[in-house]
Amino acid sequence: MKRIHSQEVKMAAMDRLKDRGVTIDAIAEIVYHMQSPYKEDLTLEACVESVLAVLNKREIQHAILVGVELDMLAERNLLSEPLLSLVRDDEGLFGCDETLALGSVFGYGSIAVTTFGHLDKQKIGIIRQLDTKKDGPVHTFTDDLVASIAAAASSRLAHRLRDEEEQNGEDGRNAQAN
Amino acid sequence: MKRIHSQEVKMAAMDRLKDRGVTIDAIAEIVYHMQSPYKEDLTLEACVESVLAVLNKREIQHAILVGVELDMLAERNLLSEPLLSLVRDDEGLFGCDETLALGSVFGYGSIAVTTFGHLDKQKIGIIRQLDTKKDGPVHTFTDDLVASIAAAASSRLAHRLRDEEEQNGEDGRNAQAN
Amino acid sequence: MKRIHSQEVKMAAMDRLKDRGVTIDAIAEIVYHMQSPYKEDLTLEACVESVLAVLNKREIQHAILVGVELDMLAERNLLSEPLLSLVRDDEGLFGCDETLALGSVFGYGSIAVTTFGHLDKQKIGIIRQLDTKKDGPVHTFTDDLVASIAAAASSRLAHRLRDEEEQNGEDGRNAQAN
Amino acid sequence: MKRIHSQEVKMAAMDRLKDRGVTIDAIAEIVYHMQSPYKEDLTLEACVESVLAVLNKREIQHAILVGVELDMLAERNLLSEPLLSLVRDDEGLFGCDETLALGSVFGYGSIAVTTFGHLDKQKIGIIRQLDTKKDGPVHTFTDDLVASIAAAASSRLAHRLRDEEEQNGEDGRNAQAN
Repeated sequence: MKRIHSQEVKMAAMDRLKDRGVTIDAIAEIVYHMQSPYKEDLTLEACVESVLAVLNKREIQHAILVGVELDMLAERNLLSEPLLSLVRDDEGLFGCDETLALGSVFGYGSIAVTTFGHLDKQKIGIIRQLDTKKDGPVHTFTDDLVASIAAAASSRLAHRLRDEEEQNGEDGRNAQAN
Repeated sequence: MKRIHSQEVKMAAMDRLKDRGVTIDAIAEIVYHMQSPYKEDLTLEACVESVLAVLNKREIQHAILVGVELDMLAERNLLSEPLLSLVRDDEGLFGCDETLALGSVFGYGSIAVTTFGHLDKQKIGIIRQLDTKKDGPVHTFTDDLVASIAAAASSRLAHRLRDEEEQNGEDGRNAQAN
Repeated sequence: MKRIHSQEVKMAAMDRLKDRGVTIDAIAEIVYHMQSPYKEDLTLEACVESVLAVLNKREIQHAILVGVELDMLAERNLLSEPLLSLVRDDEGLFGCDETLALGSVFGYGSIAVTTFGHLDKQKIGIIRQLDTKKDGPVHTFTDDLVASIAAAASSRLAHRLRDEEEQNGEDGRNAQAN
Repeated sequence: MKRIHSQEVKMAAMDRLKDRGVTIDAIAEIVYHMQSPYKEDLTLEACVESVLAVLNKREIQHAILVGVELDMLAERNLLSEPLLSLVRDDEGLFGCDETLALGSVFGYGSIAVTTFGHLDKQKIGIIRQLDTKKDGPVHTFTDDLVASIAAAASSRLAHRLRDEEEQNGEDGRNAQAN
């Protein structure tokens, strides 16, 4: 049995996102939208850095590989029924997309979970674009994956900013309200 | 070892909610707010029934007993530091309140989890009232518990409504968009 | 958009399990193995009934459809690389199979989660049979799904037995040690 | 509102564990027990290092503060009934202890969750010592917290060892079987 090298998995996950039209910048913009109210001098660069750190984790890379594969197979009618219809139509009570995405969110604490729920309902930025292309490409799993990456990166950033504030002796007046 | 009867646990959990000023109706109103867009003839009674069904579960009863106890102990300064300050001030990065509440949410599927995240951010109805009483009573755990009960009852209702529609042969045009 | 009827989804999920050689009885035997130490007069029929009740839930039906599909696509080399190798070889750090399965386990409380972890490590009954067929059929997702159904059915049974004991006024000497 | 410094929270969490007779070494021994089958030259030092890294996370520190506080309050009969009896007797269907502990486990991937379930059932090392002191000190939450720290540290180690193997160009013959 040949073992797949982590670097190969990571590259493949990044490629899959790109194939689906999801850029790092688009995810970072969601993070900026979520975190800038708590940190007025937050930069988009810091958000990009946080997204890249999240994408460095095996758990999320694997979830991307699985989720994008299912979306693409549904797009090409290569899933069997009734799964095909459930995925292609993003059926309301079908929850495997959220379940798969949540697996990588838990790792970033409770802020990440509530942010994921919020993004899933509000569909901010590229999540909305992915969600609304109804009669074309299938993004049932991909939109939840993007929400999970953005939620994880937001929570990671909130924890980091706190650490920095403490090191700088700031009083934390912009503290995240959970 | 004397075993506690389920009925005693259930009564105690209901009493704790009442002690904190949380009525079944107030929780049912959140459920109505969340689900009425998907079902125009939804009644508040159906929402009350769903809240009561959720409160019938051991998992949520136990979480209520633990969470309200911690809030009340914090209110009376009976927790040791630094836990006392973390709970009394509902510190932004403190997540045990969400973790405890999430335990009962998972049982109701992915709609429940995303609804919980949404309620935690938007603080609808009594959740907002509980959240904003900053210098008086402590509701750090209680507001998340209320959000979890409302989220679970909303998801339970969405699944039931689908079942009913299918039995009635309806076409499901008001289907929940997840 | 044609909506898939629940009954169709349920039938398909049951068929998928049968296709993979997983019978209701084989899952019920795991439940019996887990719960008989706490209830000496437990019957296999009660375990079968609990497995069927779990299989009645949309969440688990959807997870079965997704998981078995991925296993079958891997078996026929119809997944793209490196996902194909990750699934076909049940790579040790690949966790999407457990994540997908866990989604349906949470609904049955903490006993269900710890029982799932236990079954995943100990590989009791048909789980071991599925796990060890290394160079033939792919069961990467299926074995975790079976563990999740058995864990959920075990936890459901533990809660039901308690309810019955209380109704019968028993003292609960055989109480589940969690 | 004075904000609590992370360093203060961390120190308090470490003190609480020590107060309950839980040493870093005792947790590291569980990690060694779980991971040495996959890595023959694993040292106890590497396990200690992994436990310390896990204890560095806010999520687990907060959970320790909450859980140990509840155990100590139960020990001194300072919880109200029926919560007092549920916690003091570690009632079988009470799951808030596992729920609280699971919150910090999710962050370390699916191996962490299944290892937690396994430890919760098998009660290895100090977990067994904590669990069986039935008529003396209360460890209802503490034993699950120890299991969660050990599970998280084991999973963290498995991922690190893989990273090292890849850097060293090893073929990974001792790969973790999940």
